[in-house]
Amino acid sequence: MEKAEALAKFRELIKKIKSYEEVIGLAYWDMRTGAPKRGIDGRSEAVGVLSAESFRLAVSDEMGELLARLREPDAYGNLSRIDRRLVDETAKEYERNRRIPPELYQEYVVLTSQAEAFWEQAKADNDYAGFRPYLERIIEFTNRFIDLWGVKGTRYDTLLDQYEPGMTTAELDRLFGGLREKLVPLAAAIAESPAQPDRSVLAGTFEPEAQRRFSLFILKEMGFDFDAGRLDESVHPFATGLGPGDVRITTRYLKDDVASALFGTIHEGGHALYEQNIGSELAGTTLHTGTSMGIHESQSRFWENIIGRSRPFWQRYFGELQSHFPGRLNTDAESFYRAINIVEPSLIRIEADELTYNLHIIIRYEIEKMIFDGGAKAADLPEIWNAKYKEYLGVEPKNDAEGVLQDVHWSGGAFGYFPSYALGNMYAAQFAAAMEREMPDMWERVGSGRLIPIKDWLTERIYRYGKLETPGEIVRRVTGEPLNPSYLTDYLEEKYREIYRL
Amino acid sequence: MEKAEALAKFRELIKKIKSYEEVIGLAYWDMRTGAPKRGIDGRSEAVGVLSAESFRLAVSDEMGELLARLREPDAYGNLSRIDRRLVDETAKEYERNRRIPPELYQEYVVLTSQAEAFWEQAKADNDYAGFRPYLERIIEFTNRFIDLWGVKGTRYDTLLDQYEPGMTTAELDRLFGGLREKLVPLAAAIAESPAQPDRSVLAGTFEPEAQRRFSLFILKEMGFDFDAGRLDESVHPFATGLGPGDVRITTRYLKDDVASALFGTIHEGGHALYEQNIGSELAGTTLHTGTSMGIHESQSRFWENIIGRSRPFWQRYFGELQSHFPGRLNTDAESFYRAINIVEPSLIRIEADELTYNLHIIIRYEIEKMIFDGGAKAADLPEIWNAKYKEYLGVEPKNDAEGVLQDVHWSGGAFGYFPSYALGNMYAAQFAAAMEREMPDMWERVGSGRLIPIKDWLTERIYRYGKLETPGEIVRRVTGEPLNPSYLTDYLEEKYREIYRL
Repeated sequence: MEKAEALAKFRELIKKIKSYEEVIGLAYWDMRTGAPKRGIDGRSEAVGVLSAESFRLAVSDEMGELLARLREPDAYGNLSRIDRRLVDETAKEYERNRRIPPELYQEYVVLTSQAEAFWEQAKADNDYAGFRPYLERIIEFTNRFIDLWGVKGTRYDTLLDQYEPGMTTAELDRLFGGLREKLVPLAAAIAESPAQPDRSVLAGTFEPEAQRRFSLFILKEMGFDFDAGRLDESVHPFATGLGPGDVRITTRYLKDDVASALFGTIHEGGHALYEQNIGSELAGTTLHTGTSMGIHESQSRFWENIIGRSRPFWQRYFGELQSHFPGRLNTDAESFYRAINIVEPSLIRIEADELTYNLHIIIRYEIEKMIFDGGAKAADLPEIWNAKYKEYLGVEPKNDAEGVLQDVHWSGGAFGYFPSYALGNMYAAQFAAAMEREMPDMWERVGSGRLIPIKDWLTERIYRYGKLETPGEIVRRVTGEPLNPSYLTDYLEEKYREIYRL
Repeated sequence: MEKAEALAKFRELIKKIKSYEEVIGLAYWDMRTGAPKRGIDGRSEAVGVLSAESFRLAVSDEMGELLARLREPDAYGNLSRIDRRLVDETAKEYERNRRIPPELYQEYVVLTSQAEAFWEQAKADNDYAGFRPYLERIIEFTNRFIDLWGVKGTRYDTLLDQYEPGMTTAELDRLFGGLREKLVPLAAAIAESPAQPDRSVLAGTFEPEAQRRFSLFILKEMGFDFDAGRLDESVHPFATGLGPGDVRITTRYLKDDVASALFGTIHEGGHALYEQNIGSELAGTTLHTGTSMGIHESQSRFWENIIGRSRPFWQRYFGELQSHFPGRLNTDAESFYRAINIVEPSLIRIEADELTYNLHIIIRYEIEKMIFDGGAKAADLPEIWNAKYKEYLGVEPKNDAEGVLQDVHWSGGAFGYFPSYALGNMYAAQFAAAMEREMPDMWERVGSGRLIPIKDWLTERIYRYGKLETPGEIVRRVTGEPLNPSYLTDYLEEKYREIYRL
């Protein structure tokens, strides 16, 4: 086949796969935002049919032949940067997926979908013993996949690479070691501090419609493009980039907690800004997405925590917030700032503050490593879990529902995913330090509500690249060095020593 | 191939096609109800990819082989009633579609999509001369398709059969002849009557949110299942059955016209009740839909006009309507009833009343017949159009925008579709007469808001059959005779002679 023809056919096939992904993504969005409940089973089946077809295209012999042709030196050497990266990424996925026998994969999909449903029940019933057989089988399957994929480095490295390409256990040990060493004593010191912020300033009832209006306002301030996206409601907030002109986020309005929707919206808004600002030259390719879970999370957390929980941000926006809720939030910007930054060791990851959140992740990381490289059994996990919570956070779960059963991830087989959350925090702090260097008036801008230059800075350096560069390439290009946990620990130390007057 | 295997593979293939249709349907719903505008082009392309794939499955050699095997006597004779009908329907579509060369069809799709866009502009600019070349090419394509499909009866019959299986020009001449003969003089007598209802009782400003609440209320009264459907807003109201548990309708709230959303909602609600109540044994097959455009329209019009514009209905619901709009609609149920039934010859089909609407359709039918069987040229259409409006309705378009250019149908190539609307009115009146015979207290029930038995009667006799029976079979089984225009003319004569005191 002529190389030009092979390239054209390859791009066509990629575009076809993207078309499936786009419409499947829409169906998921719809199921989570308002599809009538009696339609869910049928819709899930329809989506299953389309997903299977999309997977079939991705591992087809045609794909294999096109990739082989395009990787021959005469073709590969002449590819554009985008096409080269597209070939590399697609080949990696292709090889990975071709190694799993379709029947085995099918069995695994059925298992995890049953396990997710069972997990929900087990969590409600506090029934780890009932859930354990599912978890054992999922671990067993995952181990078979690791063998089929081929182990590079440690077994757990093979899993990490799915979510954060290039990330290894050795590297995470270094990074998380740095975090743990600083954050465990910092959290302990904060707990002892007499200067505890007053949480009661957040109390009150907050009309959902007014919360929605403020969410829309803040998204607009951040530069969210409502011609290329929308905001809806769902039980679990999420962001999804369906296509270059359609990025959707959701939030959840709680009547007696104004902070939940507020920071949820800013968080998902950060994901959305990333997806909305990927370069148009990547449209129609599988590079038109975030480069990794960790980098994606860095953007949601940059906006939610570094900007959204900063003092300058609320110096500008607290009055606006108050004006949406007449008679409530009878306090000043400073007390509000302190209240939304309360640090408190807790049991539940998704309710954790910006500081202790990282310790929740480190615990999960260490346990996953023990499962795949240390021989820990499912039966041992509750005990290990509880001991680590005691050690790092000083708290003890009363039962498994608020312990080892709390997260959905393992029931879906997503081992290796958790580290992305803490990586996101580290990337975010490192990007922020670079931004402060390059934009000396950054905080003045935030303090006067000029957020667009912040977004533009991120677009120029991160967003527009989509998946064209690896996480490692991006962090080095943008900050001048590899990922370094000191940025996060320095940021947290400085911020919280001041708030808690340590 | 074993017949059991052939049947299993056939059902599997049908289910796959249904899965594509379901998700494509969702994408269209989304584009019309709130997709961000910058995402529309990409979404259209993605939907195009999936539509092409679905079409490819429907005309695949595999489909051909399975159909051939299942139509052999040893297999066909043993099929269940559902499978037999499914094989027949699928074979009909298969043969029809296989006769059109794919390149020719592709060319036609491009032409009509350009023509629809151009038509919109031409209508705004009152530019029939500019639109004419498109129309000529569409007529030319349609004639080629008729030749490829093979003419049975007249050429126009071939087109009618797409929308109303079994319907012919001879039959429509009889039906529409009966209508025209009665309705032209009736409309003329109404225009002369001194007892004109007072339209001003409908004047006022009506808060869209209150209109929405009343729409939801009325749908609930009709038995619309909100666990299996939803109501949204769109510029052009529509109903779409995505799957057995997911039927969606839209309406449009106009601030100064309470009737528009009201009757739009009831109309689309009628379509939705049909789709929501198809027998579950048809789920996952292409029989899980209305049997024809005409029968579908009979249900929307039954609910909108025969029930929704009846005196008993408003005796029950006028108070409820008033309570949604404090200070407006300061009149009584009787005056409201008369005002929503004003008959007035007009130029625009979609704004026409229940009576003259049929004349708008007859005009279009006669013109389409002239095009395909009488040699009328696109150049002649404005003149023919205007002459018929003068003759049947006594009105004359000032320009082509309010004349021959008013409808989108021809620009999309939908010749043969218009008659469905008037067929729907006739079916509806004939079903209503059967209901009155079998349920003597029908109008007392409507008058006391017991609409569920009405819905149940229709479900039992019409809805649950989906596409398992033809329109002709349904009307004969339910009413004991073939379609008969007297039911509609009798109903209209009785209703309007009373309102206009003729």
